[in-house]
Amino acid sequence: MRQTEHVRLVTIHDIEEAAARVRAFIVRTPLLRAAWAGDDDRPLWIKPESLQVIGAFKVRGAFNAIDRLGESVRTRGVVAYSSGNHAQAVAHAAAVFGIPAHIVMPRETPEVKVAAARGHGAEVVLCEAGQRERVAAELVEETGGLLIPPFDHPDIIAGQGTVGLEIAEDLPTVENVLVPVSGGGLASGIGTAIKALCPNARVIGVEPELASDTAQGLRVGHRVEWSIEDRNRTIADGLRSQPSELTFAHLQAVLDGVVTVAESEIRVAVRELAYRAHLVSEPSGAVALAAYRQGSTPAGRTVMVLSGGNIEPALLQEILA
Amino acid sequence: MRQTEHVRLVTIHDIEEAAARVRAFIVRTPLLRAAWAGDDDRPLWIKPESLQVIGAFKVRGAFNAIDRLGESVRTRGVVAYSSGNHAQAVAHAAAVFGIPAHIVMPRETPEVKVAAARGHGAEVVLCEAGQRERVAAELVEETGGLLIPPFDHPDIIAGQGTVGLEIAEDLPTVENVLVPVSGGGLASGIGTAIKALCPNARVIGVEPELASDTAQGLRVGHRVEWSIEDRNRTIADGLRSQPSELTFAHLQAVLDGVVTVAESEIRVAVRELAYRAHLVSEPSGAVALAAYRQGSTPAGRTVMVLSGGNIEPALLQEILA
Repeated sequence: MRQTEHVRLVTIHDIEEAAARVRAFIVRTPLLRAAWAGDDDRPLWIKPESLQVIGAFKVRGAFNAIDRLGESVRTRGVVAYSSGNHAQAVAHAAAVFGIPAHIVMPRETPEVKVAAARGHGAEVVLCEAGQRERVAAELVEETGGLLIPPFDHPDIIAGQGTVGLEIAEDLPTVENVLVPVSGGGLASGIGTAIKALCPNARVIGVEPELASDTAQGLRVGHRVEWSIEDRNRTIADGLRSQPSELTFAHLQAVLDGVVTVAESEIRVAVRELAYRAHLVSEPSGAVALAAYRQGSTPAGRTVMVLSGGNIEPALLQEILA
Repeated sequence: MRQTEHVRLVTIHDIEEAAARVRAFIVRTPLLRAAWAGDDDRPLWIKPESLQVIGAFKVRGAFNAIDRLGESVRTRGVVAYSSGNHAQAVAHAAAVFGIPAHIVMPRETPEVKVAAARGHGAEVVLCEAGQRERVAAELVEETGGLLIPPFDHPDIIAGQGTVGLEIAEDLPTVENVLVPVSGGGLASGIGTAIKALCPNARVIGVEPELASDTAQGLRVGHRVEWSIEDRNRTIADGLRSQPSELTFAHLQAVLDGVVTVAESEIRVAVRELAYRAHLVSEPSGAVALAAYRQGSTPAGRTVMVLSGGNIEPALLQEILA
């Protein structure tokens, strides 16, 4: 029941073009050998996207999408709805391009995240829960700005795919790539790059058990809807979205499987990254290590994508204690 | 009262050769823009050496020194005395070269550090406090191995200098480089590279007030001796050594000044690096941010060297709380 015939999938060519576009704006993150992981059959490397200027990979897609608009369109500004890393990414990219950004956030968004977006110079528009998309559409109408979606767009997928390009450059003999899955933009892009450049490598998605709609969807062959209440149970607040038709089609095409991890395993992984790798990870960023620690991922040279590091101080303290 | 006429100083050529030698063995760390630092007059970048495989810059000097021995000498093995990052660096480098390593550590060394060196396959020799150098000399006699000193050697200085080479490559317009100073190998090497490649940039050493023998020594024009009891007062356990004649001569030649920081400022800097930069730093690694936060460093594009991330979990928890 492949859906790939309905949509055009992003290609390695799109990702290579994205890489040229975003190069000047992003951190070329290194691949870090995690010698402390101590499993000789599955040597581990970390791709630390937490080192991007806003603390997460999302800048890659945001810069690619906004750069592609072209200057005349871009000057009209951009609109995004997000309470998380995508908000900061769009606000930051807009500031770098010197264009206006409107970011729609639910009223309950922590003040620190609102302040961060404003700190980049973005106009933050607070709205009621569940109204984000409607308010964003109104803003697009009103301002003439372009909507930059968090994952449901080929330019976003291609931008995130540059992570995969860099993994293939730095470790061409990689055998397993473990990637967090939420809306699926990151996994779609990385999977596309890896399958093109390292065709023998497996690309394995990782989800919290409590938000494992994609694992279930891939099993049954079509997207499944989980309630937001259910998905909100996981501590991994960056992994509560669900794939779109576009990203799901990519995931069907490029993922070799999805591993699900328990909440306690995510916490242990955040601790281990801090104490052993000297990297502060948000819960969503640590799920790939949690999957690795289950021991169920295949033998071979393994890269885990640490997607972001934006964790509330109180939660980090609680987890490290 | 320059001492530089007595010793041959390491040159940019030595550092460039070191870079070619260590390239395959170390992480080419990125320069990370710390947009959160929020001082437009002094934009800040971080050079995160905590991302090296042993969590500190020391691998650069160790690999350079051991590689330079040449294969026939190298096979006799290496000896080092250190309870800190140099121990792990030499143990790790020896393991990579497949040669024996003896590491002399004081009996009171935390078990986690002894275990880490043994984990690399090194033979750890415990000794009484103050006996490290004597025991190491005996081991050299006994095993025929070569002593790899922690900082007092041109090959070590040249290896650490590759950090400066990379800073100059990534940010040729750098105006200030802030570097922790202890035995002075890192500051000597970085200073030499920066002065050669970015002659208008200032290189500023940073020391804890409680171990500021170098600040005092540079003021009076010769090395001064502080008791180990005095130096041990600082939480920055990696900054309790004192320069040798060789490194002091370099520091006289390349440093534009030394800033000293209080213990409380070091703690705040460790917190800020974790929460804002998503990097776990040991206290010694955070002193350059502490200096920056005093506001006394000059205007201009500023790079802080985060020298290492090896902090005891209990101390990290205490500082983050």
